[in-house]
Amino acid sequence: MSQDTNALVDDIAERVRRRLEAARVGATEPCTPSPAKAQEHSHGGKEDCGTSCFQCPNHDSCGTSQAVRWGAVARVSPDTLRTSQDIAPFIDHTLLKADATRDEVLKLCDEAKKYGFATVCVNSINVGTAARALAGSSTVPIAVVGFPLGAALPSAKAFETREAVRCGAKEIDMVINIGALKAKDYALVLKDIEAVVTSASPHPVKVILETSQLDTEQKIIGCALSKAAGAAFVKTSTGFAGGGATADDVALMRKVVGDDMGVKASGGVRSTEDALAMVKAGANRIGASASVAIVLGKKSDSKY
Amino acid sequence: MSQDTNALVDDIAERVRRRLEAARVGATEPCTPSPAKAQEHSHGGKEDCGTSCFQCPNHDSCGTSQAVRWGAVARVSPDTLRTSQDIAPFIDHTLLKADATRDEVLKLCDEAKKYGFATVCVNSINVGTAARALAGSSTVPIAVVGFPLGAALPSAKAFETREAVRCGAKEIDMVINIGALKAKDYALVLKDIEAVVTSASPHPVKVILETSQLDTEQKIIGCALSKAAGAAFVKTSTGFAGGGATADDVALMRKVVGDDMGVKASGGVRSTEDALAMVKAGANRIGASASVAIVLGKKSDSKY
Repeated sequence: MSQDTNALVDDIAERVRRRLEAARVGATEPCTPSPAKAQEHSHGGKEDCGTSCFQCPNHDSCGTSQAVRWGAVARVSPDTLRTSQDIAPFIDHTLLKADATRDEVLKLCDEAKKYGFATVCVNSINVGTAARALAGSSTVPIAVVGFPLGAALPSAKAFETREAVRCGAKEIDMVINIGALKAKDYALVLKDIEAVVTSASPHPVKVILETSQLDTEQKIIGCALSKAAGAAFVKTSTGFAGGGATADDVALMRKVVGDDMGVKASGGVRSTEDALAMVKAGANRIGASASVAIVLGKKSDSKY
Repeated sequence: MSQDTNALVDDIAERVRRRLEAARVGATEPCTPSPAKAQEHSHGGKEDCGTSCFQCPNHDSCGTSQAVRWGAVARVSPDTLRTSQDIAPFIDHTLLKADATRDEVLKLCDEAKKYGFATVCVNSINVGTAARALAGSSTVPIAVVGFPLGAALPSAKAFETREAVRCGAKEIDMVINIGALKAKDYALVLKDIEAVVTSASPHPVKVILETSQLDTEQKIIGCALSKAAGAAFVKTSTGFAGGGATADDVALMRKVVGDDMGVKASGGVRSTEDALAMVKAGANRIGASASVAIVLGKKSDSKY
């Protein structure tokens, strides 16, 4: 990360903060813990919930953050990954093609249990099947939402999230509103993420930036807004838009969000070497359909 | 259309009918008009509404069908298209890229009004903008739903449809559940379409089959289920999955649905010649981002 990039990150973060203040979305209100509200909350980052919830705007003052409980925190030290199998607990084993059948979803879940992957990541239509197949295992089901364009209405993304959670999703990977981000409509981008975070609560949300479609400034702002909205992770790519994860993008995203939020590298990660490069750059979760090849030290020609 | 294909269409239509009967989805219940219910209805093809609604299972006995009112019926005679401009009223002017901005949507609407296109077709996040821009003109806004994978939960597609209509959508283009179609889970495919048709009512629904991903039997069954569920059109492609409209696919789809349902050719239609070939094959609606080039007799290199 060069000095120029550091300055750019700081400058943009400050500009985003000012713009959000101007839009009065309340993203910078202080967090005042109130034990009475500790058990249940749903606020989307706009009010204090009185818990140690990561969604609280100034969560640093809350003590242990939700992110810690989500396991989204901290870098993975590459030194701890001694064999390719050691990467398994950081992999989201992924099947997102439109024509995925029930049998393919079940096979995905079997592989995830066999190799000890963190999660399986599927379209919302398949998350109920995955949740049933994974019951009793340590692997949890992810549903993608507003996928892969991110261009559904915020209310529709929030509803799809609620339905996915009802079907058993334990994590949500949503696509950011790319058009609004490019048009600098940051209040809409924030509202969109907040609505999904609220609907998913208490489960963690990853925000897919689709980095191949963004310039550096847009990537930085996308990360800042995701963090402000209470997301648990930022994620590079859908795998459907060309391009994919790069070490430079992962390093930039890690720089912007810090160590109390996760960074997921996805798209084009097909080998142990690819995965290790992403971890070294700052990723603590890898999204891949080539997961089995990755843990077996092989290389896949899969697209995602 | 060869004799073999005709026999295949008949055979598959009969098999679909039997399978649906077995699944007791009520798709073949008779329609008994009841004037008392004529004004309001919402039934998703599962019960009689007593109107001339095309959603009624055996709508033929209802007299004038909803499809007639939707303008979905009948082929367009190529002889009536004397100049490239004559194609304009059959074109859905389309902008579906993830990063479409408000300014690009407004430009799309201006072009649609200028050239007299039937509709503009946008992602649901942009349909409110399009509806406001088109107010007072003859061009109507379409929102795509479950786009482009078709792999969202049926409830999520139905909700997105309701929200899109609330924002001003007058037509809905949904993507079929491709995985369920390939897995022969026809009851789920039907339920998915019915839920959107009910949510969109009284506005027409097009069902995108993504023909490039299907074999002939799957295309035929997709058309039959779309018709059984009360959709107004079948449509070839999203433009996001590779492939696109072919004259052979359009002819097959027209053969299956008959003349009281629409066929929309979309994906790769970039010139007047392309559009005319689709109309000759049986399309009565063209989806294109190259619409201006088509009516001006030019050729575009746009992807959709």
